[in-house]
Amino acid sequence: MARDQGSKPRINEKEVKVEGHLIDSLILTKIYDRIIELNGDFETLEFRVGKHKTDTSYLRMVVKGRTAEHLNDILREIYSLGAVPIEVAEAHVAEAPADMGFPDNFYSTTNNPTQVYYGGEWMEVQGIMMDKAVVINPESKTARCKPIRDVKKGDLVVVGEDGILVKPAERPRESTGVFRFMSSGSSSEKPALAVIKQIANDLYNVKKEGGKVAVVAGPAVVHTGAANALASLIREGFVDVLLSGNALAVHDVEADLLKTSLGVSLKEGIATVRGCRNHLVAINEIYKAGSLRAAVEKNVLKSGIIYECLKKGVPFVLAGSIRDDGPLPDVVTDTVLAQQRYKEQLTDVAMVLMLASTLHAVAVGNMLPSTVKLVCVDINPASVTKLLDRGSTQAVGVVSDIGTLLPLLAEEMKRLNA
Amino acid sequence: MARDQGSKPRINEKEVKVEGHLIDSLILTKIYDRIIELNGDFETLEFRVGKHKTDTSYLRMVVKGRTAEHLNDILREIYSLGAVPIEVAEAHVAEAPADMGFPDNFYSTTNNPTQVYYGGEWMEVQGIMMDKAVVINPESKTARCKPIRDVKKGDLVVVGEDGILVKPAERPRESTGVFRFMSSGSSSEKPALAVIKQIANDLYNVKKEGGKVAVVAGPAVVHTGAANALASLIREGFVDVLLSGNALAVHDVEADLLKTSLGVSLKEGIATVRGCRNHLVAINEIYKAGSLRAAVEKNVLKSGIIYECLKKGVPFVLAGSIRDDGPLPDVVTDTVLAQQRYKEQLTDVAMVLMLASTLHAVAVGNMLPSTVKLVCVDINPASVTKLLDRGSTQAVGVVSDIGTLLPLLAEEMKRLNA
Amino acid sequence: MARDQGSKPRINEKEVKVEGHLIDSLILTKIYDRIIELNGDFETLEFRVGKHKTDTSYLRMVVKGRTAEHLNDILREIYSLGAVPIEVAEAHVAEAPADMGFPDNFYSTTNNPTQVYYGGEWMEVQGIMMDKAVVINPESKTARCKPIRDVKKGDLVVVGEDGILVKPAERPRESTGVFRFMSSGSSSEKPALAVIKQIANDLYNVKKEGGKVAVVAGPAVVHTGAANALASLIREGFVDVLLSGNALAVHDVEADLLKTSLGVSLKEGIATVRGCRNHLVAINEIYKAGSLRAAVEKNVLKSGIIYECLKKGVPFVLAGSIRDDGPLPDVVTDTVLAQQRYKEQLTDVAMVLMLASTLHAVAVGNMLPSTVKLVCVDINPASVTKLLDRGSTQAVGVVSDIGTLLPLLAEEMKRLNA
Amino acid sequence: MARDQGSKPRINEKEVKVEGHLIDSLILTKIYDRIIELNGDFETLEFRVGKHKTDTSYLRMVVKGRTAEHLNDILREIYSLGAVPIEVAEAHVAEAPADMGFPDNFYSTTNNPTQVYYGGEWMEVQGIMMDKAVVINPESKTARCKPIRDVKKGDLVVVGEDGILVKPAERPRESTGVFRFMSSGSSSEKPALAVIKQIANDLYNVKKEGGKVAVVAGPAVVHTGAANALASLIREGFVDVLLSGNALAVHDVEADLLKTSLGVSLKEGIATVRGCRNHLVAINEIYKAGSLRAAVEKNVLKSGIIYECLKKGVPFVLAGSIRDDGPLPDVVTDTVLAQQRYKEQLTDVAMVLMLASTLHAVAVGNMLPSTVKLVCVDINPASVTKLLDRGSTQAVGVVSDIGTLLPLLAEEMKRLNA
Repeated sequence: MARDQGSKPRINEKEVKVEGHLIDSLILTKIYDRIIELNGDFETLEFRVGKHKTDTSYLRMVVKGRTAEHLNDILREIYSLGAVPIEVAEAHVAEAPADMGFPDNFYSTTNNPTQVYYGGEWMEVQGIMMDKAVVINPESKTARCKPIRDVKKGDLVVVGEDGILVKPAERPRESTGVFRFMSSGSSSEKPALAVIKQIANDLYNVKKEGGKVAVVAGPAVVHTGAANALASLIREGFVDVLLSGNALAVHDVEADLLKTSLGVSLKEGIATVRGCRNHLVAINEIYKAGSLRAAVEKNVLKSGIIYECLKKGVPFVLAGSIRDDGPLPDVVTDTVLAQQRYKEQLTDVAMVLMLASTLHAVAVGNMLPSTVKLVCVDINPASVTKLLDRGSTQAVGVVSDIGTLLPLLAEEMKRLNA
Repeated sequence: MARDQGSKPRINEKEVKVEGHLIDSLILTKIYDRIIELNGDFETLEFRVGKHKTDTSYLRMVVKGRTAEHLNDILREIYSLGAVPIEVAEAHVAEAPADMGFPDNFYSTTNNPTQVYYGGEWMEVQGIMMDKAVVINPESKTARCKPIRDVKKGDLVVVGEDGILVKPAERPRESTGVFRFMSSGSSSEKPALAVIKQIANDLYNVKKEGGKVAVVAGPAVVHTGAANALASLIREGFVDVLLSGNALAVHDVEADLLKTSLGVSLKEGIATVRGCRNHLVAINEIYKAGSLRAAVEKNVLKSGIIYECLKKGVPFVLAGSIRDDGPLPDVVTDTVLAQQRYKEQLTDVAMVLMLASTLHAVAVGNMLPSTVKLVCVDINPASVTKLLDRGSTQAVGVVSDIGTLLPLLAEEMKRLNA
Repeated sequence: MARDQGSKPRINEKEVKVEGHLIDSLILTKIYDRIIELNGDFETLEFRVGKHKTDTSYLRMVVKGRTAEHLNDILREIYSLGAVPIEVAEAHVAEAPADMGFPDNFYSTTNNPTQVYYGGEWMEVQGIMMDKAVVINPESKTARCKPIRDVKKGDLVVVGEDGILVKPAERPRESTGVFRFMSSGSSSEKPALAVIKQIANDLYNVKKEGGKVAVVAGPAVVHTGAANALASLIREGFVDVLLSGNALAVHDVEADLLKTSLGVSLKEGIATVRGCRNHLVAINEIYKAGSLRAAVEKNVLKSGIIYECLKKGVPFVLAGSIRDDGPLPDVVTDTVLAQQRYKEQLTDVAMVLMLASTLHAVAVGNMLPSTVKLVCVDINPASVTKLLDRGSTQAVGVVSDIGTLLPLLAEEMKRLNA
Repeated sequence: MARDQGSKPRINEKEVKVEGHLIDSLILTKIYDRIIELNGDFETLEFRVGKHKTDTSYLRMVVKGRTAEHLNDILREIYSLGAVPIEVAEAHVAEAPADMGFPDNFYSTTNNPTQVYYGGEWMEVQGIMMDKAVVINPESKTARCKPIRDVKKGDLVVVGEDGILVKPAERPRESTGVFRFMSSGSSSEKPALAVIKQIANDLYNVKKEGGKVAVVAGPAVVHTGAANALASLIREGFVDVLLSGNALAVHDVEADLLKTSLGVSLKEGIATVRGCRNHLVAINEIYKAGSLRAAVEKNVLKSGIIYECLKKGVPFVLAGSIRDDGPLPDVVTDTVLAQQRYKEQLTDVAMVLMLASTLHAVAVGNMLPSTVKLVCVDINPASVTKLLDRGSTQAVGVVSDIGTLLPLLAEEMKRLNA
């Protein structure tokens, strides 16, 4: 069944292999599917399937295109799915032609763990994110994922598809928790209390094992009256970093100072007198204090999400957006700088909770490797779908009301912590 | 252009009046607006506005159309808004030409309280619902709202617009509870716990004053794990009648017998083995018992929404739909008959909770006078809007997750009841 | 750990096989996954993968549970995915204990093509639908899918999982048209005009090959002004049967008689005078004529969807629901009877268009085998998801506005037909 | 009926008046309602209602609070609704205590046309936007609306409520076009083609009268294949300024260079090989050219939305956001600066089309006076509601698919232009 020994390889054929736990056999299927979809052909040379569920499977095949170029198209696709050429070629690099410029044939990353074979050895690409380039430092023998704005003239950027090994995240199996049972995607028709318990368990276990947890939260957390719940999660030590924008902080300050959110009383839910002025008052008070931190130190701000962050030493980054009122002095108004601050905080994160946020959640989704656990809660199914479509295999979408879900989650976390 | 005293009224002019509490001054505005919109004209003869907020206002005006027909068009519209001709004409009636047939110029009802002036006296139209006709019984001196299927040949059906007095529901003011603060419509960005407290207070007060409460519930109540919460509301005496369909009952039975909903474990949220068969098993068990009541009596069905209804003597009507599996023997499969059963149960209802239901909620909405308090909860804003668009002025929409909202509501009701 | 030749099979082990085109290798993955998920184990005995994309693959394995019962749980699941026992046992049957009663251990169907091995031969289950039972007629050697209401005392109902062969629908590959490119699911962010062209091509090709096309349409087709477009599709011969409810027909009649839909002028989009009365007038006119057909014959109804159906001889079924006004004399008010009428019309259907319908679309989805091509258009992503979740592998969801999509589709069909 | 002459006014009472066309009588109602809602009282002194629809009405009343403070609360609310004190007090001003600091009791603006009475004369507040402060320049005798970031130490900021006259936008009546018939709010159940015609007429008429039209567009315009339609509107001269973000421009460039949007072929709707790399290629090409303008000049970019803007001299502003890839060199990455650029472009705008945009549409909504005509199209009803909730009385929401609506609109505009 082996390929004719001695014959010269044709330019429109290539021998590749795939290895992995049987559990990942879905990858095989995807590879077959993609070849067929692209009207390529193949010949299976060897296929060893594990006998038991912990065994490794191995597939070796010749992939065939109509032309060398057609073959290359196919190879690019299946390499990004985890197939590897039998004979590893070195990755090719080309110098960046200018600051903020990729060479034309640059390799575009996925968010899966990726290795590059260069200078005779494999390097793990550091800081992997989707839709970026890979820059190699031959001296330190390191490879790093870089967005276009960070590229400097002369950087050695990986081009073509040779020498690249992408390792798709193994789907979590036999695991417990929300990541197992929700794999069928998001839906509003799941037993809500069971879902909350599962998220609570996952969050508890991640923290117990020393994992870092980031929360991305939208202003609806405050509007829907769930700010206390998030504040409680921070106080109890379940949050390591908060990523958000101007609006969350403004409403959080308004909630503490005036007990309203956009002028609506949080206790009674009734629009208060001159209430639409309240969030401007909140902004003004922070400007008077100088910053959110100063407002806490001067005893102006006495409770809430930001207050708990500052008390607990939990870092937060507030990224500016064009719709901001104010914005507060603490807001990073330059979006490129804000991206950098977000990325710094997301280093080594193990789990991310996205709570009723769209703009900042999408930004974070783009920065995360596919191996990070991701729970996304929103009342709008379209928002959840948009976030999960970005490709995290470990993502779980929950279509629910943050105003009722978060208090129940905070309660559950207290119970687990007790 | 003032109306000549003593001159014969022109055929394209009509003198009308509007009276009401100042609080209803919105009606005046609507009447002015509608006249202008229809390119009519008017002359205000008298306008007394109450000095204080409890006083009555009074408006008298001449409405003018371009032609008699144009005038009639305008009058039809403003009569339905509460304007009344100065000189009350008797309502005209015509015999129904056949069973299930209206005379051509039949009067079509609104869902507002309506009176008919016939035979020299005012009769309240009984069983008012929107989009029906009014049939007069001259012997018993009663007027009744009738759908086309109930009309018999020879019935005296009101035709034209004369002799009709529509009284738009006064908007609840100075009241407390959810009906006050939510008047700005539905939104997912309200403080959820505050909303729940307000609904709880309203429900508690309605029951305390002896009001009748109907619940219209969809199967998502069970899927989202909120069946226990609804069962608790029934057990605690807050529900007087349950209106639903086949699916709710099937899933409720499945939840009791097999602890799943559509095969998904309600405790762990995980799809169970062969689970998609479970709801068929539930159906089969009820067929074996003979009916839901028999299943409770034979100790087959031991908990849940239907169980609590049967134990507590709370009537329920399950209306059939074409998407039903089974359907259960207890389901009223003829939709016309099901409408009648629903209507019987809705007599004198004071408050209706619509919980994650669309089909049956729309049906109930069509049957309710505008004076009934209506709370509609759904995670889909479109569903809530659709229901509230139907014209109930006392309707409140809550965009939330029934799976988290209902347990919190049930808890609050227990607290109030304690 | 290989299976001892000649040894007695253990009660917690079973040898099974899977065969199919390589293209279906996804099935293998699903089978592995499900075994692992259920904490079972397996030993692969033989795995031949096709060399080329048209070859057949073959897998033989021993599946192991902890106990005989655990094994049975696993087998039930993987049989429904397409695995087959090596030694085919005969299907077991049991007599239905009563009219409308399944034996306890009844086999519950999927919507995939299914065969039963009974009396020494394989029978194709006729009229396969999901969530029903299979009744065998040993005399005619036929097997039929039956809902519980159709079961008669003494019917031979298949029980357990032996002797059942389920053939999951092969995913359409290499095909063209919307079913290929939309396999990634529904989204509102697809190039709309390209999607419409693809649907048009599919519809055109299905008709060209003599396939039967059913349309399931909701009243929004009329509200959004797309009735002319649907009427045109019928007139041009692209629709073989129309399945809908009372509201579509009422609004269609209103559109013809009064040029409004729920009182809103279809030409100008403005609410007309006394317009909310219009749909009642439409109902009354049909009652006066006697039926929709009579209304066409008496020249009362002169255009629209129903008119074109009657002129073209396209059968339609209007299923009643509890929210109906009227309902029209032509409506099948008994939902069980309406299900039967729908099923009769769906026999041998090749493609179904679901247009802004939820209730009737879900009903139809439950009745369709997984092999039928299904296009579902709705502006609400939740409705589309709900329909596609039902399990049709050939289903395509399009999130768009029926009011703009349908006229563009009708135009495209005219172009293709020219 | 007059108030006792000569008596000293009580501190908890104030005499106010409201004047306006009868057509604005809704304002009266709102004022009554708000007083009652706040548990205030009132005595009507004079109420002249116009006899004819073009006449002016006049209301004079004493408003009463329980205390001076309670009265002030009520006055603030009704002043913002258009009530005016009988005796106009001068507006009070206070110096801004610091750069970027309001005095504590600052007056917070609405988006309605506003006048300030200061130094013995009325000044129109220039650049009115909601939720800002008013700064008075006593030398130039001008008043200007300022966000907190623009306030300089020593600026004379209006404080309290005295001397402020807010003129709520009169609702457009008797007008034609979409702004009339859609006043009942957004819904997906409107006749779509009629809506499109109405928007087309409005857009045509605004341009014919020399009005300035701004388009705010989201990237879905490109994804859904409607870029050609928007390009056509620009080419035909119907767009005076384009406000958007990085993503629209990137996808627009990708569509021109590679004929895909996020890798999906715009012609066939099929994901292309290595397609997810395409938008990075597009970014890289613009970086290589130096800017979008340079790319057009160098003949790299040859068609599309941005191309037509540059050819036609239509200015565009691309505001950065944290989720941007790249972003392109043309993007204003500082959000505060981007707000300024947007505001400059929105000066004197007469009509705004918001096309499938949320972030940038909300930003623009915050900057618009309530007198600007606003059409907002999105497939997600929640997005439309969010935008319209911001308070523009001239706003029209259309829930539809931009991918089908925009081509139909562009066609209609061509027809009108011919």
